[in-house]
Amino acid sequence: MVSEDNFKFKEIEIPSPGEGEFLVKNLYLSFDPAQRGWMDDKKSYVPPVQIGEVMRAGSVAQVVDSNHSDFKAGDIVQGTFGWQDYAVTNGEGILTASLVSSKFPITAPLSIFGITGLTAYFGLLDIGKPKEGDVVLVSGAAGATGSVVGQIAKLKGCKVIGVAGGARKCKWLTEEANFDAAIDYQTANLNEVLEELCPEGVDIVFDNVGGEFLNTALLRIAQNARLVICGAIAGYNEENPLPGPSNYRTLITLRAKMEGFIVLDYKEQFPKAIKELAKWVSEGKIIYQEDIQQGLENAPKTLTRLYSGKNFGKQILQIAEPE
Amino acid sequence: MVSEDNFKFKEIEIPSPGEGEFLVKNLYLSFDPAQRGWMDDKKSYVPPVQIGEVMRAGSVAQVVDSNHSDFKAGDIVQGTFGWQDYAVTNGEGILTASLVSSKFPITAPLSIFGITGLTAYFGLLDIGKPKEGDVVLVSGAAGATGSVVGQIAKLKGCKVIGVAGGARKCKWLTEEANFDAAIDYQTANLNEVLEELCPEGVDIVFDNVGGEFLNTALLRIAQNARLVICGAIAGYNEENPLPGPSNYRTLITLRAKMEGFIVLDYKEQFPKAIKELAKWVSEGKIIYQEDIQQGLENAPKTLTRLYSGKNFGKQILQIAEPE
Repeated sequence: MVSEDNFKFKEIEIPSPGEGEFLVKNLYLSFDPAQRGWMDDKKSYVPPVQIGEVMRAGSVAQVVDSNHSDFKAGDIVQGTFGWQDYAVTNGEGILTASLVSSKFPITAPLSIFGITGLTAYFGLLDIGKPKEGDVVLVSGAAGATGSVVGQIAKLKGCKVIGVAGGARKCKWLTEEANFDAAIDYQTANLNEVLEELCPEGVDIVFDNVGGEFLNTALLRIAQNARLVICGAIAGYNEENPLPGPSNYRTLITLRAKMEGFIVLDYKEQFPKAIKELAKWVSEGKIIYQEDIQQGLENAPKTLTRLYSGKNFGKQILQIAEPE
Repeated sequence: MVSEDNFKFKEIEIPSPGEGEFLVKNLYLSFDPAQRGWMDDKKSYVPPVQIGEVMRAGSVAQVVDSNHSDFKAGDIVQGTFGWQDYAVTNGEGILTASLVSSKFPITAPLSIFGITGLTAYFGLLDIGKPKEGDVVLVSGAAGATGSVVGQIAKLKGCKVIGVAGGARKCKWLTEEANFDAAIDYQTANLNEVLEELCPEGVDIVFDNVGGEFLNTALLRIAQNARLVICGAIAGYNEENPLPGPSNYRTLITLRAKMEGFIVLDYKEQFPKAIKELAKWVSEGKIIYQEDIQQGLENAPKTLTRLYSGKNFGKQILQIAEPE
């Protein structure tokens, strides 16, 4: 399990931007389950963070000092600036926050319009391919991705069942987020409740969790089901992989598939997706939650909230105020 | 593990065909790994065989006595007549062997042109979708399905690696069946050998076996890999499911999918597929092996050969000579 002991707080001089570069001050850091994977010394879709390097993280920041023609002091920008107060960048891959209308909160590019919201959008629509009347089962349903998955599925005419931990999250899912049903995995027998709620089986499983959830879901899939493998947070902090889904043989008898994806592959389509998400949020069709903690020194502790399920909605850390 | 004790040999009167029916004499019975699944009291793609019923099996038979206008005495037919010498049928779902040219052996409709050959054809082409240059990894590679998968993949320009048990089967794969490489799972370290043979990863995994094979294959897949889940014979005789593939998280990082299928869903396309397979066999581009045992009383013992890996090629039992 990742802990505060894995990190060191270090003070250094604020760097100066060179020719064609600019200096930003980090305001809000994004926390994502995938960050744990970046800390493993393994080949993956991004290189691992090395020991001694600044921890990688997405953030919203403000330009302080600029030698770059596209960015000027005061601009609010979005990038992967990491766990630090200041960063120098040449602007590559940096978005200005004006991509999203200014009527949304400054943190929205990290939550609903950020990686977590976009993961929900592309994972559900492109891999899950929902059809009207489909039954959709979402794990980590009160999380920043799961809650958006369920609400988009509702917009597509699906019946949506969310699985989350604790009565408070479950109540939010059905009373605020428009889910048809919520199952508290801490108290319910998932297999039995699913058999009651959808005896005809689940057409789309959107899994953020893995472990027992995925194995039980495989017992309750319908013919031609699509299992969108988005994450497996239950196992991210285990030294050895958790037991695999021993019920995967239902993929054969029910002609079903389990498919993984990486949201960064959809980069070119982000602007279009953000536009559609923004429309839904403006119309009140999608709501989202943010869980905002305070202070850079609390970054390690804030990361661990994700793996203990303490966060409710997108986990964010504010480390400075915009000027 | 299924054993001879699960079956009873019973002698009864030969039935008489009624109006619109005909009587067949079974000649050759087909043995398929899936038969073990039909004996489990579980909902599946076909109803389970009930205790006291004749064991279900495909076969080639000869019409003995007919009150049906489409079938006459002497015709060679193919159907699901089960483990018995004689059967009465109304002709529903029964094919005449003339579907396949008479230049092929009488058993060919059970092997290369039967369910096992067709499973290879549709599983590889429709689910695996091979492209020229793909690396294809096949388990149960010397079996009736696996050997055809590998040879079709070669025809599509792929590099083909087979996994089988024992030096004899491996030698046959590379020397006779045109595989690029064969790995003996009884002696080799699959993970290490695959890393050597295809450091760039495997594009298509065609799995008949499950268990350890599938879990190791998941470590060695390439980006956008397709894992065709055809069977899981390693676990068919276990009371509890074998451990699931704990390495399934590579589906996420490598944007890959695991997909199951049932060949009966392709029924309408069988004639076209058989025609193409027949062409390849005639041209010597696909070879196949049959393992023909003798005597109806040996049916239970013959079934167990599949699960101990004793069979080499399609397992068939001859129970009578055609007249």
